[in-house]
Amino acid sequence: MTLLVTGASGFVGQEVARLLADQGGHGAVRLTDRTAPPIPIGSGFDAVAFDLAATEHLDALLEGVDRIIHLAAVPGGATEQVPAFARRINVDAPLAILEHLDQIGRPCRFVYASSIAILGPTPSPVDDETMPAPATLYGAHKRMIEIALPQFARRGSIKSVGLRLPGIVARPMGPSGLASAFMSDLFHAAIEQEPMTLPVSAEASIWILSGRQAAWNLIHALHCDIEDGRSLTCPALHVTIGELVQQMFSDAAKVHHAPDPELQRLFGSQPALTTPLATEAGFQSDDSLEALIASVFASIRAQAPSIAR
Amino acid sequence: MTLLVTGASGFVGQEVARLLADQGGHGAVRLTDRTAPPIPIGSGFDAVAFDLAATEHLDALLEGVDRIIHLAAVPGGATEQVPAFARRINVDAPLAILEHLDQIGRPCRFVYASSIAILGPTPSPVDDETMPAPATLYGAHKRMIEIALPQFARRGSIKSVGLRLPGIVARPMGPSGLASAFMSDLFHAAIEQEPMTLPVSAEASIWILSGRQAAWNLIHALHCDIEDGRSLTCPALHVTIGELVQQMFSDAAKVHHAPDPELQRLFGSQPALTTPLATEAGFQSDDSLEALIASVFASIRAQAPSIAR
Repeated sequence: MTLLVTGASGFVGQEVARLLADQGGHGAVRLTDRTAPPIPIGSGFDAVAFDLAATEHLDALLEGVDRIIHLAAVPGGATEQVPAFARRINVDAPLAILEHLDQIGRPCRFVYASSIAILGPTPSPVDDETMPAPATLYGAHKRMIEIALPQFARRGSIKSVGLRLPGIVARPMGPSGLASAFMSDLFHAAIEQEPMTLPVSAEASIWILSGRQAAWNLIHALHCDIEDGRSLTCPALHVTIGELVQQMFSDAAKVHHAPDPELQRLFGSQPALTTPLATEAGFQSDDSLEALIASVFASIRAQAPSIAR
Repeated sequence: MTLLVTGASGFVGQEVARLLADQGGHGAVRLTDRTAPPIPIGSGFDAVAFDLAATEHLDALLEGVDRIIHLAAVPGGATEQVPAFARRINVDAPLAILEHLDQIGRPCRFVYASSIAILGPTPSPVDDETMPAPATLYGAHKRMIEIALPQFARRGSIKSVGLRLPGIVARPMGPSGLASAFMSDLFHAAIEQEPMTLPVSAEASIWILSGRQAAWNLIHALHCDIEDGRSLTCPALHVTIGELVQQMFSDAAKVHHAPDPELQRLFGSQPALTTPLATEAGFQSDDSLEALIASVFASIRAQAPSIAR
C-alpha cells in the first residue's frame, strides 16, 4: 500500500518528502504535483505529474493508496486573484478525492493541510474552541474541507485529520501567491544580513513553524490518536517581528517597516495561541526561536549550495 | 433587470413563484430548474430548463440577472446516496454562480436557501450564536456555501444572505430524497384522516414552517436589512409531533409511532429556537400552529383539485 503526497513540488511538500526519506520505514511513497516532483534519494519513492483540476482521472492517482498527505492548494493571494480556478484545486479536488475513496470503500488515512487562515484575524487568544471565521477566500476554501472531513469519517472508510498550519518559514524567495510571503523573505534577508522593508510593524505578532517541523507534524498526523474527522490548530511559536529581527540581524536597523494595514490585520495581529488537543496528540512546535532559526537557516543553505556554509 | 429563481420546479420553488405572481411588482422573473418550471399566470415570468451541473453555460442563465433566490439542491437523503453528484449541485453550482457574478462585477442580491441541517442535532437551545455542526453531508454542503457568502460580499458586488430553513410542510407525497419527508406525509394523511406510521415518537419536537411562509421569507430576504453575507436561522414554530397530531386528527390513535433512532436524532430532537437577528430583520414564522395547518391544507388542496374542498 502507498502513501500519497499531493503538492509535493511545493515548499512544504518537498520538506515532507525529504523527512519521509530521512525517517524511512514509510513503505511506498508516491509524490505528485502538476509537474513531477523531485524524488528524494531512497527506495520506495515514485513521482507522478497529475493535474488535480482533472479529477476524472483520480482512480489512477489513488490506485493502491491507503494514506494521503494532501498539501496541494492555490495559496491565499492567488486565490483572491483567480477564485474559480483556485476553487477547483482547493475545494473540488480534495472533495473529489474524499468522494472517490468513500465510494470504493477502501480504508484510508487522509491528512489534510488546513490553515490558520480559517480562524480569521481575532483579538482574543485562540484555543481549540475558537469559532472559525475566515477573512479570505483561501481561508473559506480551507474551512469548507474541514467541514467535509467529519462527514466522510462518519460514512466509514476515511480516517481523517485536518492540521491547521501557521506561517511556515522559510519558503523560497520569489512570487509564491502567498500574501504572507514577507515572513519567509525576512529569513532570506537575515541569512545574507541584507536590508529589507517589511509590510508589518516590529510589534506585529505571528505564529510560525519551520518547514521541517511542519513536515514532522504532517507525518505525525498519519498515525496520531485524535477524534476522526477533527481539525485542530498545529502548535507554533508566537513571536513578534521585532524579536525575530533582533535574533537574526546583527544590526536591527537594516530592517525597515512600512506597515500595510490589510497585511498587518491578516498576518500581523495574531494573539496568544494554546493548542491543548494537538499538544496532547503529540504535535509539536519548534523547540525555541533559536531552534527554529537554526532549522530554517539549515534548510535555506541545503537548498542553495552557492551560499557559503 | 431580472430576478432568477433556481430550483423553481421544486416544492418551495413553486411556492415562491406563485407568491411572486400573487404579490406582483417584482419585475421580470426567470424560473429555472432541470426541467422547465411551470410559469405562474401573470406577465413578466419566463421559464428556462437548465442543468446546474453544467456550470460552463452560466453566462446565458445569468444574463441580466440582478437578484437570485437560489433553491436548487439535492436533498439530504439523496446526498448521502450520491455524494459526488450532490456536491456538483449543492456546492459547485452555487460557488460557480457566485464566482461568475463576482468576475463580471455586476451588483446582485443573492438569497441562499440554507438549512437548519447546518446546525446538526443539539440538545441546547439554538440562537444566533449557536456554532454550526452539521451531522449530514447535505448539512455540510449547505454550511460550505454559508462560509463562502461573506467572502463574496467582501469582494464587492454580491449582496448575499443565507436563510436557514427548517422543516417545510407539506411537500408533495412520494419519493423526494428527503430524510425528513415524514413531516410532510403527516399533513397529507391528516387532510384525508388516514392512518399512518411515523418514524419518530409523539414527543419528538420539530421546527416547521409552511411552504407559503417559507416563500414569503425568501422573497423578504431580497430586500431585508441585515449584515451582508450573513446567514441566519429563519423563525419557525417549535412543536411536538403529538401536538400536530392532536390538532389535525379527530382520532389521534390513527397515528402510530415506530421511532427510527437516527431519524429521531436528526429530525425529532429540536430544542427551543430563538432567532433575534432574523426577527429584527422582519422574517416571520407562521402566526400559530392553527394558521400553519390552515395554510398547508389550503396549499395541498390547491395542488390536488380532486380532493374535496
